[in-house]
Amino acid sequence: MASPTELTAMRRAIELSSRAVLTTPPNPDVGCVVLDAAGSVVGEGWHEYAGGPHAEINALREAGERARGGTAVVTLEPCAHAGRTGPCTDALLAAGIARVVVAVTDPNDAAADGAAILRAGGVDVETGVLSGEAARANSRWLTPFHTGRPFVVWKYAATLDGRSAAADGTSRWITGPEARADVHRLRAAVDTVVAGIGTVLADDPQLTARTDPPPTRQPLRVVVDRTGRTPSDARVRDDAAPTWVATAAEAGAGDDGEVDLTKLLAALYRDGRRYVLLEGGPRLAGAFWRDGLVDRVVGYVAPALLGAGRNALAEAGVGTIDEAIRLDVTDVTVLGGDIRITAHRKA
Amino acid sequence: MASPTELTAMRRAIELSSRAVLTTPPNPDVGCVVLDAAGSVVGEGWHEYAGGPHAEINALREAGERARGGTAVVTLEPCAHAGRTGPCTDALLAAGIARVVVAVTDPNDAAADGAAILRAGGVDVETGVLSGEAARANSRWLTPFHTGRPFVVWKYAATLDGRSAAADGTSRWITGPEARADVHRLRAAVDTVVAGIGTVLADDPQLTARTDPPPTRQPLRVVVDRTGRTPSDARVRDDAAPTWVATAAEAGAGDDGEVDLTKLLAALYRDGRRYVLLEGGPRLAGAFWRDGLVDRVVGYVAPALLGAGRNALAEAGVGTIDEAIRLDVTDVTVLGGDIRITAHRKA
Ligand SMILES: NC(=O)c1ccc[n+]([C@@H]2O[C@H](COP(=O)([O-])OP(=O)(O)OC[C@H]3O[C@@H](n4cnc5c(N)ncnc54)[C@H](OP(=O)(O)O)[C@@H]3O)[C@@H](O)[C@H]2O)c1
Ligand SMILES: NC(=O)c1ccc[n+]([C@@H]2O[C@H](COP(=O)([O-])OP(=O)(O)OC[C@H]3O[C@@H](n4cnc5c(N)ncnc54)[C@H](OP(=O)(O)O)[C@@H]3O)[C@@H](O)[C@H]2O)c1
Ligand SMILES: [Zn+2]
Ligand SMILES: [Zn+2]
Repeated sequence: MASPTELTAMRRAIELSSRAVLTTPPNPDVGCVVLDAAGSVVGEGWHEYAGGPHAEINALREAGERARGGTAVVTLEPCAHAGRTGPCTDALLAAGIARVVVAVTDPNDAAADGAAILRAGGVDVETGVLSGEAARANSRWLTPFHTGRPFVVWKYAATLDGRSAAADGTSRWITGPEARADVHRLRAAVDTVVAGIGTVLADDPQLTARTDPPPTRQPLRVVVDRTGRTPSDARVRDDAAPTWVATAAEAGAGDDGEVDLTKLLAALYRDGRRYVLLEGGPRLAGAFWRDGLVDRVVGYVAPALLGAGRNALAEAGVGTIDEAIRLDVTDVTVLGGDIRITAHRKA
Repeated sequence: MASPTELTAMRRAIELSSRAVLTTPPNPDVGCVVLDAAGSVVGEGWHEYAGGPHAEINALREAGERARGGTAVVTLEPCAHAGRTGPCTDALLAAGIARVVVAVTDPNDAAADGAAILRAGGVDVETGVLSGEAARANSRWLTPFHTGRPFVVWKYAATLDGRSAAADGTSRWITGPEARADVHRLRAAVDTVVAGIGTVLADDPQLTARTDPPPTRQPLRVVVDRTGRTPSDARVRDDAAPTWVATAAEAGAGDDGEVDLTKLLAALYRDGRRYVLLEGGPRLAGAFWRDGLVDRVVGYVAPALLGAGRNALAEAGVGTIDEAIRLDVTDVTVLGGDIRITAHRKA
């Protein structure tokens, strides 16, 4: 059983795990706290960016010699495979850690022997401590293991009254430069951006991540386009990033003849895709929600009113108030003059 | 000219003036900082609730003898009329204050000789210091003097996608109990609640302030109802509060035959009303915005999605994105699971 000190340390580790968010993908969000033999916190760390040191390494570095005989409290089972920075199991053993308290065991078969290797090395390992909370904080990475599809974030921009365009269809710009820059950071974090053919025909968006500095890799652009109406000169077809025009013939059709979104996501998963940014429009987003395929929503709400024009979300299969899709807000941030609201499906 | 110390004190006084908000009406929101002769802060106060001591009295009380020879920095010209707590000019003179720095002069003729009385008493008085900022913080009270109509707050409740009802018209409840309790506090603060006949026919709301403890006085209920369709057994006609069914015949009609909202507000102003809570529905709210009659919006946004159903705001005279009604967000608060967004028209 975990001690009260270890539980407190795990809560802190979960908090640390939530810090980096947009720089960790495709890696998990992990936090680690190292306690010395007497139970005092001597090191804290989190996985700050993909390719950088893992949480355990950062925490051990801060702890130094004080880690010897101590306890490492970590939100995800330490890795045993030699990744870009070498296995954390080795580092924990070398540091003389006597006990490792883990929240979530690694669902990744290839790496799943971290606990076993530590035990073989004489370390006392306990798993499952505050695993629910830790899993929620790492859901972007864990969800694909359980669902066999990428984690899906729906992003929208709308006015206070929920409009994403004015009566005449104009929509540039609803939100300000800070919110738009944030969308580019979000695009740089995912491996796939999805939009409907309606949006491509209406706005001709490029759907690339234009950050400064530019991302090392652009996400795949996917247009959900039953009959292949994406124009040959659409910006989404330029050579700035790869593109898949997902027709019903290629991705599979549902009963309604539209592209089957569950099959589409399964295909993306088979292609190694784990993190999808769904950029709309309202019809496609409604279909994703109706099919239960959205994990998180990031809404950029501009303090403006239109009183007419398209809504940010169309038909999502909700007929009456008791069927409303209910969410939990996890973050509210003011960005420039706009409000960013992050929420996820109620557990 | 105000010294840097006095400017800092005025900024603090403005901050203090914004504290009470819902308990001060019908009085102004006022803050005061007292500096001793050396320029150190020795007292702070704000007007906490109508009927309670004014900001100056609270600040002087904290300062005590240290006020002698010092400076009072106050966001609104001190009152000279004997109100419920006696004139602040008397208290400032009695405390031996040598200088008074005022942001906004009192637009109320009856009390407007505060500065003159202080000067006659030998006090050095400076007015107009950070008056723009201070006026914004007190706009709920100041606006009626400049516009000849009550200050109007539009309140709405909606989902993230801007819906105020589901596809079948059901809307109970979009927001949670904390947000609904907050609406009752808002009703208790205003002197008038306005709703459209559409809302009365659809929802039969009572439109009273049900706070614990109950408010000392209920706001006037106004139904905007061109032809007088409010049913005789509508809850809005019960004896819990006074009610005015504002027909076109009584309130005056505009060119479109609807109730003329500018005339309606002017009539309320003549009746002594200074603070109106506009509770919708979407059509009436759209007409208020179109006519430029809304000063502030308080939106209760539930983290829920409907994908269909009425929008919180209907036709507001905006045809294209450049005509969008742009607002400044002044507060974002999480209430229970919901988000309350307060914003006002861009200056
Ligand atoms: N504010 C924002 O955040 C934002 C973001 C994006 C877009 N927008 C706005 O949204 C508007 C376009 O939205 P939209 O609703 O017309 O189009 P959309 O959602 O982008 O695309 C809808 C189209 O996707 C195709 N589709 C294929 N499979 C589908 C499925 N399973 N479910 C639903 N659709 C499927 C259908 O056309 P086919 O049958 O031909 O395949 C459908 O008409 C534009 O005005 C754009 O400006 C706003
Ligand atoms: N979520 C929320 O915050 C909220 C709040 C309130 C209501 N609601 C919902 O809103 C719905 C009712 O809204 P609604 O839009 O149908 O009705 P409404 O806005 O409450 O009332 C509109 C009616 O007011 C009358 N009116 C008189 N003068 C007017 C003027 N100058 N401009 C506009 N209207 C004027 C008109 O009827 P006459 O011509 O007969 O006078 C008009 O049809 C209900 O479903 C209710 O549940 C939601
Ligand atoms: Zn590792
Ligand atoms: Zn006073």
